[in-house]
Amino acid sequence: MRGKFIVVEGLEGAGKSSVIGLIVQALIDAGKRVEQTREPGGTPMAEAIRECVKHDWDETVSEETELLLMYAARVQLLINKIFPSLADGAWVVGDRHDLSSQAYQGGGRGVSEKTMTAISDIALKGFKPDLTLYLDVEPAVGLERARGRGELDRIEQAGLAFFERTRAKYLSLAQQDESIVVISAMQPMEKVHQDVIAIINDYVAASGSERSDTGHNKSLQGQD
Amino acid sequence: MRGKFIVVEGLEGAGKSSVIGLIVQALIDAGKRVEQTREPGGTPMAEAIRECVKHDWDETVSEETELLLMYAARVQLLINKIFPSLADGAWVVGDRHDLSSQAYQGGGRGVSEKTMTAISDIALKGFKPDLTLYLDVEPAVGLERARGRGELDRIEQAGLAFFERTRAKYLSLAQQDESIVVISAMQPMEKVHQDVIAIINDYVAASGSERSDTGHNKSLQGQD
Repeated sequence: MRGKFIVVEGLEGAGKSSVIGLIVQALIDAGKRVEQTREPGGTPMAEAIRECVKHDWDETVSEETELLLMYAARVQLLINKIFPSLADGAWVVGDRHDLSSQAYQGGGRGVSEKTMTAISDIALKGFKPDLTLYLDVEPAVGLERARGRGELDRIEQAGLAFFERTRAKYLSLAQQDESIVVISAMQPMEKVHQDVIAIINDYVAASGSERSDTGHNKSLQGQD
Repeated sequence: MRGKFIVVEGLEGAGKSSVIGLIVQALIDAGKRVEQTREPGGTPMAEAIRECVKHDWDETVSEETELLLMYAARVQLLINKIFPSLADGAWVVGDRHDLSSQAYQGGGRGVSEKTMTAISDIALKGFKPDLTLYLDVEPAVGLERARGRGELDRIEQAGLAFFERTRAKYLSLAQQDESIVVISAMQPMEKVHQDVIAIINDYVAASGSERSDTGHNKSLQGQD
């Protein structure tokens, strides 16, 4: 039986890492085999691409370059890790996926919807996560938390207005897609974690009941 | 007055390097300021992307990844070197440009025309070279010459059938575009070089006569 692809999304400082840890543990407790990914990155080539895109270059980095590199890394991760893991029955928990590009490059950088759709079609051919948890945080709050962890990278330095546009895009995309759940990351951490656990346990229970009618693997390009 | 962008294209072993040297010298002799580029590469970030795409990874490298990386490097080179040099009046001589992707990824790897057009539109927004010299060589002849120079990289190892498809695409694209001149690189080298010099001298003379009616810089995205 094909595994599920669960993605955690959010601005810097939204608390993705601890939420990912919780989800992984909840899935293991439910008897699932779990693989973790992060984007950009997750294979040797994708990690090299990540270095390229995160590096503080002494040259103008165009929006298009950033976008093309993000999707290059994403395709490598998909074909070499996400697809094989799902086909093998593992559940994959991703630290970011396509929604990050839609929000950061489409929303934050203002890349046109036409461009975003064209490149996503080329790279993903319609593939999308089964479930996405978007941890919503005000940029000022998130960045303050992220700064506490050390230096911000080139993308993280883009300024508050950039992150406001990114957040607005996250929220607007979440409204249009029922596979994206918005969790307020401005609640006390304990409450955030309770919400996450409840959502994951519900999802696992619901997916377990599908067991009988998904005897064959649908195309990995499609959705269950 | 805006400079011109002249590109040399061809399979491995077609003799691009010596032809580029000839062109550069001919342009300097004609009083032009000359900049040279190579693709993928030509800026620090684009060279890092080149490393990524040329490296012999121990993982499957998808056609889409290769394509996205090639165009990421191309955009960096365009905005940081080609556009500023042309605007500054320099003539730019390129070792490969977009036609290589059309031929290698589109022809050789079989990436669909729809995908090739979509990604080219995103990255180049209609920009193309003023003049392209395609050095046509039979793959078996070219590869034999290239092997004499040392080890072939990942892309060069793709086999003869791949290069036959790439060559066929080069020739078919050249037929559809009058800015692409085909030179047989299977002639004696002396004759190839005479052909190149004649074409470049004609082109310089013709572009000189445009001088009076191009007093302003058209958009760098467009063609003279």
